[in-house]
Amino acid sequence: MKHIHCLKCVKCGREYALDEVMYVCRDCGLDGTLDVIYDMNLVAVRLLRHIKTSNTVREPLSIRRYADLLPIQDERLLPPLHIGWTPLYDCHELGRKICHNSQTAYPPRLFIKDDGRNPTASLKDRASALAIVKARELGKTIITCASTGNAASSLAGLAASVGISTVIFVPETAPKAKVAQLLMYGARVLMVKGTYDQAYDLCLQASDTWGWYNRNSGYNPYLGEGKKTAALEICEQLGWKAPDKVFVAVGDGCIFGGVWKGFCDLYDLGLIDKRPQMIGVQAEGASPLADAFISGTAVQPQRKLHTIADSISVGQPRDALKALRAARHSQGALMTVTDDEILDAMRLLARNTGIFAEPAGATAFAGFQRMIQTGAMGEAESVVVMVTGNGLKDIDTAIRAAGNPTIIEPDFHDVERALCDDYPAK
Amino acid sequence: MKHIHCLKCVKCGREYALDEVMYVCRDCGLDGTLDVIYDMNLVAVRLLRHIKTSNTVREPLSIRRYADLLPIQDERLLPPLHIGWTPLYDCHELGRKICHNSQTAYPPRLFIKDDGRNPTASLKDRASALAIVKARELGKTIITCASTGNAASSLAGLAASVGISTVIFVPETAPKAKVAQLLMYGARVLMVKGTYDQAYDLCLQASDTWGWYNRNSGYNPYLGEGKKTAALEICEQLGWKAPDKVFVAVGDGCIFGGVWKGFCDLYDLGLIDKRPQMIGVQAEGASPLADAFISGTAVQPQRKLHTIADSISVGQPRDALKALRAARHSQGALMTVTDDEILDAMRLLARNTGIFAEPAGATAFAGFQRMIQTGAMGEAESVVVMVTGNGLKDIDTAIRAAGNPTIIEPDFHDVERALCDDYPAK
Repeated sequence: MKHIHCLKCVKCGREYALDEVMYVCRDCGLDGTLDVIYDMNLVAVRLLRHIKTSNTVREPLSIRRYADLLPIQDERLLPPLHIGWTPLYDCHELGRKICHNSQTAYPPRLFIKDDGRNPTASLKDRASALAIVKARELGKTIITCASTGNAASSLAGLAASVGISTVIFVPETAPKAKVAQLLMYGARVLMVKGTYDQAYDLCLQASDTWGWYNRNSGYNPYLGEGKKTAALEICEQLGWKAPDKVFVAVGDGCIFGGVWKGFCDLYDLGLIDKRPQMIGVQAEGASPLADAFISGTAVQPQRKLHTIADSISVGQPRDALKALRAARHSQGALMTVTDDEILDAMRLLARNTGIFAEPAGATAFAGFQRMIQTGAMGEAESVVVMVTGNGLKDIDTAIRAAGNPTIIEPDFHDVERALCDDYPAK
Repeated sequence: MKHIHCLKCVKCGREYALDEVMYVCRDCGLDGTLDVIYDMNLVAVRLLRHIKTSNTVREPLSIRRYADLLPIQDERLLPPLHIGWTPLYDCHELGRKICHNSQTAYPPRLFIKDDGRNPTASLKDRASALAIVKARELGKTIITCASTGNAASSLAGLAASVGISTVIFVPETAPKAKVAQLLMYGARVLMVKGTYDQAYDLCLQASDTWGWYNRNSGYNPYLGEGKKTAALEICEQLGWKAPDKVFVAVGDGCIFGGVWKGFCDLYDLGLIDKRPQMIGVQAEGASPLADAFISGTAVQPQRKLHTIADSISVGQPRDALKALRAARHSQGALMTVTDDEILDAMRLLARNTGIFAEPAGATAFAGFQRMIQTGAMGEAESVVVMVTGNGLKDIDTAIRAAGNPTIIEPDFHDVERALCDDYPAK
C-alpha cells in the first residue's frame, strides 16, 4: 500500500508502519488512537487523474470513487452494497425560514447531507466498509464491535453481504429497530444490562480473547477513514468547494474527527482552498466532549447519561482527542442542545424537507437552529448539516415527538367528526 | 403536454383527453382504471437524444432522468428529494446457492433491485412523486390517500418537502413505524378500525366531499407511471436489456401493472428487444389476484385476510385489470407463497446480501425461491427480484423472523458463558 505513509498516534505522534500495529498506540494505549497518514504526492497523481476530467457524473456512485484516498489496497474487498454518495439537499428556503425571527440579516445557505440513505440507514456504513476490508485483508472470518446500535447494525449488514460472521455487544437501551436489524442480518447479539461504555469494554476483552477483528469506534484506526468520505462527497457535490461550517452530532467523536480528516486531506491535496469550521453537537445529558471544549480542561467521563439520542449517548468518548482537535484546529466548537430541541429539530426537518431523522440524526440540525437563535452564525455562510441516521431506527422516540393518530370507526360520520374543525364541510 | 396522446380505459378502451377526466373511466367507474398513452414518436425524439450518448453516467440520478417518458409538463414540480435510481445488485452467487438442491442445471443470473433505498424507504415514492406533480398542476394544497402504510408515508414525506398538506387513512393493522413516519411528516392521520379496503372507501368519500387531490392506488391514473420508472432503471442498469423474468409482490396490483407498463413503453420505443415475463407474488392469506389468474375466473373480493405482509394485505385489489393484463400479456404468472416462506425469504435475503426487506418486500424473493424449488424456472434465465420496502418499516415481524438477543450482565464471565458453545476458549 504505497500511498500510505504511516499510522500516527494522535497523542504522542509516534509513527508506525501499517503492519506494525493493529489498533492503538503501544505507548498511549486506548487514548492513543491512530491517524492514517498518506503520501499525498502519490495520492494526488492517482486521484486527480479521475477528477475534474468530465462534465457528467463519474462512476462509481459510492465511496469506491475515493478508493485512491482510502487505506485499502484492493477495492474488490469492499462490500458489494452501494455505500455513500448520499444526497446533499439544497435547503436554503428552510435556512431562511429559521432565520426569520433571529438577528441574522443574511441567512445561511443551508445544505443537508442525508446519510440515512445508506444501506443500513446510517452513516456508519462508511466506516464498517473499511472494517470489512481490513478483516478480509487479515483473513479474519469474525468481526466484533460494541455499539449503541448503528455501528453494529451497519457492521452486521455489510458483513452478511460478504459472508463474514459478527458478534455484537449492545447496551440494553439500544432501540428495538437496531436490534432487529442485527438479528435479521444473522449477528450473534449480546445485549448488556448496562451502558454502551460497559459493552465497549466487554467487546475489547472478547476480541482479545478470541482473536476476532475489532471494529470499535475510537480504537480501530480505519473507521474515521471511512467516515471522512462524507466530507469528500460534500466538497465534490458543492463543486470542489468546502462549506463555511459543518454541523455534526458527536458521541464518541469518531464521525466528527473523521469528517474533519476528510476536509484536511482534500485541503492538503489542493482540491479545496479552505477548510470549514467544524461544529460538534452533543446532547446536554451526554456531553463530556462539549464540557471539555468549553471549560478547556481534560475530558471527564460522565457516568449518568440521559438523552433520547441513543446513538450519541456516550459518557466516555473513545475518540476524544481527534474530536477536540477537529473543533480546535478548525476554529470550530463543541456545543450542546436539549432533548426538547432535538425533538423539535426532528419535527422541523421532517415537515419541511421530508427527511426523517433519528434523534441523533437531528441533533446537528438542533445545533444549527440554536446557533441561529443565539446570533452566533455569521452572515450568508454556507452551512452543511449532517443527518447521520434514519428515523425508522427509533420509532418510539419519533412517536414521542410526533403524537398519535386519530382512531375512528369505519364510518364516514366518524371521518366528518374527526376533521370538522380543520376542514368545514363544503 | 404534447407527448401524451390520451388516457385510455383499461376495461372498455374509451379514450379521454388529459383534462377531460381526473381519475377513472366515466363508463366503467372504479373498474375502469386508466392507462397513460404516449405519442411514442415524440417521446423517442426527446428521450433518445439523452440516452446512449455517453460512456459515463448521465444525470440526474433519479426518476427525473426519465422525465420525457412521464406524464408531466414541468419537472420542476417534482419533489426535491432524490427518488429512484436505486441499486440493482448482482446476486448471482445467491441464485446459485438457492439452486443447489433443486432440479435446475443452470442457475438463474439473479439481480435484486433494492427499492427500500428510496427517501421514505419504499418503492411508493416513485408514485407519490407523480401525485405531487399532478396536485401542484391543479393548484391543490391538500392530498389524501388510503394506504396499508407505505403509500401514505411516502405521500406524507414527499408532500412535506413541497409544503402540501396530507390527510391519510390507514387500517389499524398498519405497522407502528409507518404510522410514526406519517405523524412525523405532519400528516393528519385517521386510523380506521377496519381493513385497508374500508379505509380506501372512506378516503374516496372524503376526497369527493372536500375536493382534495386523491392518490389512491388503482384510482389515480398517474401512479403506475411513477412506478414504471423501476422498470426503466432495471433496463438501463442492465445496459438497455430486459431480464427474462421479473418478480414483484402484488397487493392492489398497481406496482405490478406499472412495472409492466415500463417494459412495454421501452419496447415500443425500441430501446429493448423483448419484454420480461412478469411474475406477481401474493401472500396465501390475501390472494384474490393469484386465485383469479389460476382459476381463470373473475376476481372475487376476499373478506378475511391473514398475512404478515401488511403492504399486500388487500382483499379487494383496486388495479385488478392492469395486474391480470401484466401477467397474461407477458406470458407470466401470479402465484402465492406462505407467511413462513416470506419469513424465510427475509432471513435469507438479509443474511446473504445485507438487504433488509419488510415482509412484502421479501415476498417477491419468496416467490423466486418457490419457483426454483418447483422446477418451474427456465435454465440460465436472467431474473430481477424487486424488494419494494425496507425492513425497518415493520420491526415486530422482523423480530418474529429473526429471534431475540442474548441478555447478559456487564461481566465477562457472562460473555464467556453465552458464547462458550459457539466459540470455545482459545
